[in-house]
Amino acid sequence: MIKNLDSVFSNIANSSKRSAIREILKLTQRPDIISFAGGLPSAASFPVDDIRRISNDILSEMGCMALQYGTTEGCLQLKDQLIQHYANDGVQITRDTVLITTSSQQGLDLVAKIFINPGDTVICGLPSYLGGISAFRSYGALLEGILLDEQGMRSDLLEAKLIELQHKGVKPKFIYIIPDFQNPAGITMPVNRRREILDIAYRYDVLIVEDSPYRELRFEGEAQDMMYKLDNTGHVVTLGTFSKILAPGFRTGWALGHETVIDKLVVAKQATDLCTPAILQLIIARYMEEGLLDKNLKTTIEMYREKRDLMLQCFREYMPKGVSWTEPEGGLFLFITLPQHMSSEKLFMVALENKVAFVLGQTFYCDGSGQNTMRLNFSFPTKDQIIEGVKRLAQAITAYQD
Amino acid sequence: MIKNLDSVFSNIANSSKRSAIREILKLTQRPDIISFAGGLPSAASFPVDDIRRISNDILSEMGCMALQYGTTEGCLQLKDQLIQHYANDGVQITRDTVLITTSSQQGLDLVAKIFINPGDTVICGLPSYLGGISAFRSYGALLEGILLDEQGMRSDLLEAKLIELQHKGVKPKFIYIIPDFQNPAGITMPVNRRREILDIAYRYDVLIVEDSPYRELRFEGEAQDMMYKLDNTGHVVTLGTFSKILAPGFRTGWALGHETVIDKLVVAKQATDLCTPAILQLIIARYMEEGLLDKNLKTTIEMYREKRDLMLQCFREYMPKGVSWTEPEGGLFLFITLPQHMSSEKLFMVALENKVAFVLGQTFYCDGSGQNTMRLNFSFPTKDQIIEGVKRLAQAITAYQD
Repeated sequence: MIKNLDSVFSNIANSSKRSAIREILKLTQRPDIISFAGGLPSAASFPVDDIRRISNDILSEMGCMALQYGTTEGCLQLKDQLIQHYANDGVQITRDTVLITTSSQQGLDLVAKIFINPGDTVICGLPSYLGGISAFRSYGALLEGILLDEQGMRSDLLEAKLIELQHKGVKPKFIYIIPDFQNPAGITMPVNRRREILDIAYRYDVLIVEDSPYRELRFEGEAQDMMYKLDNTGHVVTLGTFSKILAPGFRTGWALGHETVIDKLVVAKQATDLCTPAILQLIIARYMEEGLLDKNLKTTIEMYREKRDLMLQCFREYMPKGVSWTEPEGGLFLFITLPQHMSSEKLFMVALENKVAFVLGQTFYCDGSGQNTMRLNFSFPTKDQIIEGVKRLAQAITAYQD
Repeated sequence: MIKNLDSVFSNIANSSKRSAIREILKLTQRPDIISFAGGLPSAASFPVDDIRRISNDILSEMGCMALQYGTTEGCLQLKDQLIQHYANDGVQITRDTVLITTSSQQGLDLVAKIFINPGDTVICGLPSYLGGISAFRSYGALLEGILLDEQGMRSDLLEAKLIELQHKGVKPKFIYIIPDFQNPAGITMPVNRRREILDIAYRYDVLIVEDSPYRELRFEGEAQDMMYKLDNTGHVVTLGTFSKILAPGFRTGWALGHETVIDKLVVAKQATDLCTPAILQLIIARYMEEGLLDKNLKTTIEMYREKRDLMLQCFREYMPKGVSWTEPEGGLFLFITLPQHMSSEKLFMVALENKVAFVLGQTFYCDGSGQNTMRLNFSFPTKDQIIEGVKRLAQAITAYQD
């Protein structure tokens, strides 16, 4: 082997760690453990039969075309379906303002690539999606965290941070926001807060990256306008995905943005994977064309709502005093706050002994705080697992407190 | 829009251009133009019926499992088939020394990400695959080109360059080599040259990135041992792909390397796209398991050999004096050298008027040289197009010379 291997790797490779979540997931894959740690959709939400039928049809009708290289920009059939999908949400997009990505994670990677020079500052929520944090850090971004309240990122703290940075001569590259059923906090930002943050973004001339993988998974309450819709100045780049509403194994998502931004993303994507599998794009487009996406969403939402309700009910029933949790209107996660003096890392070991697992909340805090928080997924476990798992977790917390 | 958009993009985004090839491809998509410009496999080589049948089987048998998130490392079924595939080639790999990538282009991107800091030096051939050059540059690499002779990268020039760099205190991150049917030059490096280059790599303690997307497409002559096989010290990272031997639309490839390198690639891939579509990996694994890959390769090789022979025959028949070309033993491309005083860029415009297109050779030269060269693809055009296209090209060259 080469003599000094560490000297060969890039600074980024030397500083990157395996995703804590994915490593923890390995720990928790023992069959006797009930795991709330993952972020997986329920396999019952995947329309296997429809996908099999459509996949067969596409290969019969389009044959080789479905297996050849596609354009970097994405298949027009899928773009046109997304145009329709957004029109139903009151948002106008065009073929030139959408790029098909190989998963929303690729969207985060490409956004990082086109905006971030090593040492640049990016603002994100405390807490914030780990995959976003990792992607930004992998291009050398310095992250500044802004606390959330029950309406999402606090605009007063955001403005204070921007003033502070301005004094230091630092202009952040963008503000990373997950406005709908935030991962991990489960919070949805109301329209007013969105407007406030947009207003700040305009005044300090900073872009917003709106990551919204769960938007379609609303169980109740009214949809809040997308930041992309509220903006009409090209300040917002929005990422979406089919992972949570169709099948994560398709690794197909999209990015919306100003034509100039989309153009840069296309160039970056060329050097990254040339194009997203056409066959998967064509299957999804046909699935949407047949109206099946909305139909499948209805049953998925129904299923997830029941699971969320059950998990909340179990929390009310079993959790010891001092533990609080979010009550999300959609998405996949509950976020739990333990009493200030408790450490979810220490609890994790007790919980594993009790055969239940979760993700440490502090994984999602770019400043290392959040030691007394944790994220629980309710979409993947069965109802029985939810009941038994929350019981075990409550016991673990009680045992830890004693 | 944001006030000073250029200031928002990263240095890399500001310096990246759309791939010249892909832009030229757009120019050449007029139906009346015979294009030798692309690098597409022949659609006739895609086993559509088998893929349709297997895709149906996989979805019936594995159902949701095929549509869920997979591991970042890749499906074991596919890894095990690759282990067998390489065993047939006399190469021993293990589950821990192979990573499944979302296309070989992603392999290049990830290799760049884990090795290159902005300003680092990478050595490549003159000429060299544009997708490699773009991926390395997108992480800020400075490229040093080494001329090829009829045996590939010249080892004497490589050593001279390494000495020169050593004097400057520069240690390159890796040497990028496409040893089999090099893109674009069509040259295959014989084993002796491979050993010479490995020996130099050991002495100067530099890694080798072996990119071999065409290795399986040998029409004649003896296979030369992979550099990965000749090395047993962990100095070689090898990239492979199913794009040219099964279907590019599957965007599925692989990387081989020392466990430590694979581990870094896995971490980088986590932040890039989490995982490669499991359904596509499972289809390919089953396809290989049934022995169909080797069977399909035979007919593909037969077809491409005929096309290459035909193109070479047309060259001998129609090309004016002073034009020379490679006679590749495999792969997809011929590389043409015009008389020194001619410019393939000027010829390109004449050729377009004559309704025939190619790729400018200088695109593949990281130092901007190669102005009198061009790359022609013979896998995609039909036989009639090859005959008529070479005639038109010969006419264009004659017209340009007059």
